[in-house]
Amino acid sequence: MLIAFTNSRKRSAIIITCLIGLATAVIADEGMWLFNVPPLKQLKEKYNFEPTPQWLERLQKSSVRFNSGGSGSFISSNGLVITNHHVGLDTLQKISSEKNNYVRDGFYAKTQAEEPRATDLELNVLMSIEDVTARVTSALKPGMSAEQSATARQKAIADIEKESKEKTGLRSDVVTLYQGGAYHLYRSKRYDDVRLVFAPEHQIAFYGGDPDNFEYPRFDLDICIFRAYENGQPAKVEHFLKWNPDGPKDGELTFVSGHPGKTDRQLTYDELADMRDHEVPYLLNMFNRREVFFTAFAARSFENARRVREDLFGIQNNRKRYDGYLAALLDPEIDRSLKAREQKLRDAMSKDAKWKGTLAAYDRIKKAQDETAKVLPVYNYYETLRGKQTATYRAPRGFYSTLFKYARLLLRAGDERPKPNGERFPEFRDSSRESLELDLFSTEPVYDDMEQAMLTDSFTDLATRFGYNDPLVQKVLAGKSPSARAAELIKGTKVKEVAVRKKLYEGGAAAVTAAKDPMIELARLIDGPARVARKVFEAQDEAKQQAYGDIAKARFAIEGTSNYPDATFTLRLSYGAVRGYKEDGKQIPPFTDFAGLYRRSAEHDNKPPFDLPQRWIDKKSNLNLSTKFNFVSNADIIGGNSGSPVVNKANEFVGIIFDGNIQSLVLDCIFSDKQARAVSVDSAAITEALRKVYDAQPLVDELTAAK
Amino acid sequence: MLIAFTNSRKRSAIIITCLIGLATAVIADEGMWLFNVPPLKQLKEKYNFEPTPQWLERLQKSSVRFNSGGSGSFISSNGLVITNHHVGLDTLQKISSEKNNYVRDGFYAKTQAEEPRATDLELNVLMSIEDVTARVTSALKPGMSAEQSATARQKAIADIEKESKEKTGLRSDVVTLYQGGAYHLYRSKRYDDVRLVFAPEHQIAFYGGDPDNFEYPRFDLDICIFRAYENGQPAKVEHFLKWNPDGPKDGELTFVSGHPGKTDRQLTYDELADMRDHEVPYLLNMFNRREVFFTAFAARSFENARRVREDLFGIQNNRKRYDGYLAALLDPEIDRSLKAREQKLRDAMSKDAKWKGTLAAYDRIKKAQDETAKVLPVYNYYETLRGKQTATYRAPRGFYSTLFKYARLLLRAGDERPKPNGERFPEFRDSSRESLELDLFSTEPVYDDMEQAMLTDSFTDLATRFGYNDPLVQKVLAGKSPSARAAELIKGTKVKEVAVRKKLYEGGAAAVTAAKDPMIELARLIDGPARVARKVFEAQDEAKQQAYGDIAKARFAIEGTSNYPDATFTLRLSYGAVRGYKEDGKQIPPFTDFAGLYRRSAEHDNKPPFDLPQRWIDKKSNLNLSTKFNFVSNADIIGGNSGSPVVNKANEFVGIIFDGNIQSLVLDCIFSDKQARAVSVDSAAITEALRKVYDAQPLVDELTAAK
Repeated sequence: MLIAFTNSRKRSAIIITCLIGLATAVIADEGMWLFNVPPLKQLKEKYNFEPTPQWLERLQKSSVRFNSGGSGSFISSNGLVITNHHVGLDTLQKISSEKNNYVRDGFYAKTQAEEPRATDLELNVLMSIEDVTARVTSALKPGMSAEQSATARQKAIADIEKESKEKTGLRSDVVTLYQGGAYHLYRSKRYDDVRLVFAPEHQIAFYGGDPDNFEYPRFDLDICIFRAYENGQPAKVEHFLKWNPDGPKDGELTFVSGHPGKTDRQLTYDELADMRDHEVPYLLNMFNRREVFFTAFAARSFENARRVREDLFGIQNNRKRYDGYLAALLDPEIDRSLKAREQKLRDAMSKDAKWKGTLAAYDRIKKAQDETAKVLPVYNYYETLRGKQTATYRAPRGFYSTLFKYARLLLRAGDERPKPNGERFPEFRDSSRESLELDLFSTEPVYDDMEQAMLTDSFTDLATRFGYNDPLVQKVLAGKSPSARAAELIKGTKVKEVAVRKKLYEGGAAAVTAAKDPMIELARLIDGPARVARKVFEAQDEAKQQAYGDIAKARFAIEGTSNYPDATFTLRLSYGAVRGYKEDGKQIPPFTDFAGLYRRSAEHDNKPPFDLPQRWIDKKSNLNLSTKFNFVSNADIIGGNSGSPVVNKANEFVGIIFDGNIQSLVLDCIFSDKQARAVSVDSAAITEALRKVYDAQPLVDELTAAK
Repeated sequence: MLIAFTNSRKRSAIIITCLIGLATAVIADEGMWLFNVPPLKQLKEKYNFEPTPQWLERLQKSSVRFNSGGSGSFISSNGLVITNHHVGLDTLQKISSEKNNYVRDGFYAKTQAEEPRATDLELNVLMSIEDVTARVTSALKPGMSAEQSATARQKAIADIEKESKEKTGLRSDVVTLYQGGAYHLYRSKRYDDVRLVFAPEHQIAFYGGDPDNFEYPRFDLDICIFRAYENGQPAKVEHFLKWNPDGPKDGELTFVSGHPGKTDRQLTYDELADMRDHEVPYLLNMFNRREVFFTAFAARSFENARRVREDLFGIQNNRKRYDGYLAALLDPEIDRSLKAREQKLRDAMSKDAKWKGTLAAYDRIKKAQDETAKVLPVYNYYETLRGKQTATYRAPRGFYSTLFKYARLLLRAGDERPKPNGERFPEFRDSSRESLELDLFSTEPVYDDMEQAMLTDSFTDLATRFGYNDPLVQKVLAGKSPSARAAELIKGTKVKEVAVRKKLYEGGAAAVTAAKDPMIELARLIDGPARVARKVFEAQDEAKQQAYGDIAKARFAIEGTSNYPDATFTLRLSYGAVRGYKEDGKQIPPFTDFAGLYRRSAEHDNKPPFDLPQRWIDKKSNLNLSTKFNFVSNADIIGGNSGSPVVNKANEFVGIIFDGNIQSLVLDCIFSDKQARAVSVDSAAITEALRKVYDAQPLVDELTAAK
């Protein structure tokens, strides 16, 4: 599933225009394009299609970003938003209880009064883009150290964001593109009152489970429908997508508008090699550990299983995704392409006296990489709260607990908020205040037994990573076993209560100190070393950014500037044709249908994860079994595109992206359309299922009434 | 489950007589005693029981060692052997097919003609013990280097084993005890024609699955009954245990005779710290990886799940076991006990001029440990085939494949067998020939798709461990991706055929070379570096052995010699009373019953892993529901004790060990009987189930007829 997962290690990025080796000879449908630099030339040349500015604006403003890591779109004037079930899953999990199990049973609100509100979901709609490159780069003066540059750059960005927020009231983020190539100010309309309208059973949304994930053919109704509210009323939205109940045709040109999370196509070969040999193995090691941990926890009782369903889903999804990415990086053919891609640019630089000196930038990146590696263990286990690109906070690896997350946010809010805006960590700047508060004051349930298990496992992980006798580990454990220490912290802390969190947040550092809360004191205990690691990490990241910036300048000069930057969880436009592919000599057709779903279930004796919800068994005879269910296209997508609308040339909603096939996992580092495919739910299947399986005719009416 | 798993890193051992801290004030029922040094004094003092030599001989010669890593016992004069289902599982898996699924469905041979033969199961019964310490140690001359000593010691051991084998025809193993304290020659009668008589469904044998594993109360019918054959006829055995159909009483003294695999109670604190900070985390990392891998593989189809059931069981079992052990090592109370245990001996040494110099032995162990660490990655990924203690061969981590195992055994058999017996690797010595051939010519099924998946994963693991550009990794991958390389090897190799393996084995090195088999050539490619790592590893192990030997001498002088050595997968006698324990303030009773089984199933809606086999549902009304099912005692046991008979003072079979509770996992490094308990199936449950659930009255008659 293509939900965004941003690594603990942020990556700098630079545009590389020429991807060789894997791309086919004709112009490939490559690219995750900026809406202000759309692929007009390519669309005209290959498809003879010229989107108008109005066409682009409609699609842009119908597109929605989910802070839980995915994409979506408005599909009615009354604020209906469609996304994937697995994007909505975070909310479904948080508003479910042992009694009301929306994840397992699905949900349909027949009236607006029945729509339950999400606990901490934030939607953003991109309203405008402004190039602020000149203003950001003018903050950097010659002779500054990497650390000084980092501070100056951060301050310039914070100023721009604050100014914009105050002027427009819109969420304002300065986005780094082509690393040093460009800085754009993105202004977004924010919705934080979001309510659930419809979700199918997890079973059919994620039909085939882990075995079918990232595979094709598929049979998943991976959708979830919310409604955005403003001032307690359904949001009236100007831009939304017209519902097309028939889906696309084989070979038809389609467009995808969504928020791809992160690609590595512009990294140096050294950085990709480090990814292959260190970072991805590190992540897989972490996911393996967590998968085993959560699976064992879930096996103990139905209620345990319910509580960790979403975590487990996310972990398995990432594990499978990184397995696939690693396989790609270990493929010698791909390795040669990556090397050749870099060599081509290096050769061009060597031949031009003006850019020859820029070759040193590669060494600077390597050096920064080596310096980063030194603090990485501390950074990963003690610091990582989030990269700016992901919208939700995560606890660091050694303290994997929701209560710790709250404790640290309270501690740091107290320390950071009194500082001048530009000197704070980005997550505490004025421009991020609303998002921070939404997260910090979430009513998401916190289960003591889960916290106990997770924190015990984290402390064990921490102790073995640094050694039991490591002085900081000894301080963290305070003379107790991991499990006794976890129990004491969970019993003693008060941050579980939203009211306590509000009070401490409002009271600032003095109140936080006075509380003498053991979990907050733990956060304080490790705050020094964690901040040191973050400082080094960010200074080295700045050094990389500058080096990538230098390479970018050379590249722009050598190859021109009209191309797309690496994905950064910002809105992008992709396109491609509905198209099958060949695998092991067999032609895989682009569409599946409902009949195929029932066949697959029968093949597996209707046993999990191939079992059908009872409703689908009961309603089988109502259904037109030749209804198209899922389809593939060769649009260029990646994690974060989950929930992206697929539209036709008429800008009508014809499907929704929910996955890529296993061959698409290479797209992280290089484009290919030989076998890589984006997988979508067909709008025909959604229409048929809503009507005939879920008796949701009023919802269908609302969708199809929309003009 | 208490099946033996021997770490990749062999450990030297020395006796430490005084275990402080955790043991209770009264004499604890501690110890895994040698049959030639039984705890007569302790039994007399605490229980006023004096076993006669005949009593001990009967129990010893009724006890059976399984080469698959567990224990068992003769329970009839006609060669019936009872063990745990999870010990027999290796065989059940190997003789099952998609059609005859003995693991899932269980099995009962109503007549001897119906008893299917195991593919490669070897049973050993200890017939005699001889102290050969003087002869072994006399081979070591002053001034020898560690490497020279290792060679001399190996040669002396090989000579003794060969001589004994030739003289007696019995399997002969020189066992290292108290490391440098003693060498004993163990002569065993070997059975390699072993047939399956009875197995229940895996579901009831392993009722509660991973969540209930290492927990109590329990409801498992974890038994499996084989019959040993000689010359095509049921073996006539002189010594066997009389069947007691009533089980033991609360508080009753019981004995356990079995093969505990490995304890670490005599390791130095430095070695235990290394275990805690490095070795156990390394193993858990490996098990997590494999658990995720096999679980994902199993989820794809019923047949996949069937094929990997035993692997998955073993992996989950080890993961849970090492999780528990690590938790114990990270407990400061235990840590203090371990430190104090060593300090006490060190203090005694310091005070005695004669032993003061021996303190340097601790530093030599630390040094050997550091030297070992340097070659450990190569040793683990390229070499580990087996420790001598485990009887079955395993492929090394980077080449985790049955076909690779065969290829390496063939290559090395060709190279090693022409050498003088004493200079060969132990697994190729004359005394091990029969066991080697049993393994090498096994008819165990090999599945290409499983090999493909496992080898791809291993190569990926290898490439990321050493880096993709590591020269040896590059040679292993031969310019291909892990998956392409695996495919090429599996397609090209002929070692899958038993006949080919026989031919190459008999043809020796010349035939092996001439075969140009790609899997064998891969084994050859890495043979140099693998041997180098093994040589360093073994030289350091020898250095440790000598240091432990010095410490042992001091200890014997200071504390006396009558105690038990660390477990080494050789036959041991433990004892203890049937006794409940307190947990979280609650008293856990020692027995469970059939009624409890049905209650537990109902609590979990009869869903896996708490579902009952259909037969148990159908036969419920036949059963006496108050029949005792499982019980706990405080006998001192550990992995490898699985299947050990539990006998009463009359030497009658009253139960069978199958697990320890989670609190017993600390027993690896220190004894405790506060909460640590051994878990057994009650003989009453076995009798009732065989009669009323499995309609196996003839089998019960055979058991109860035996006098």
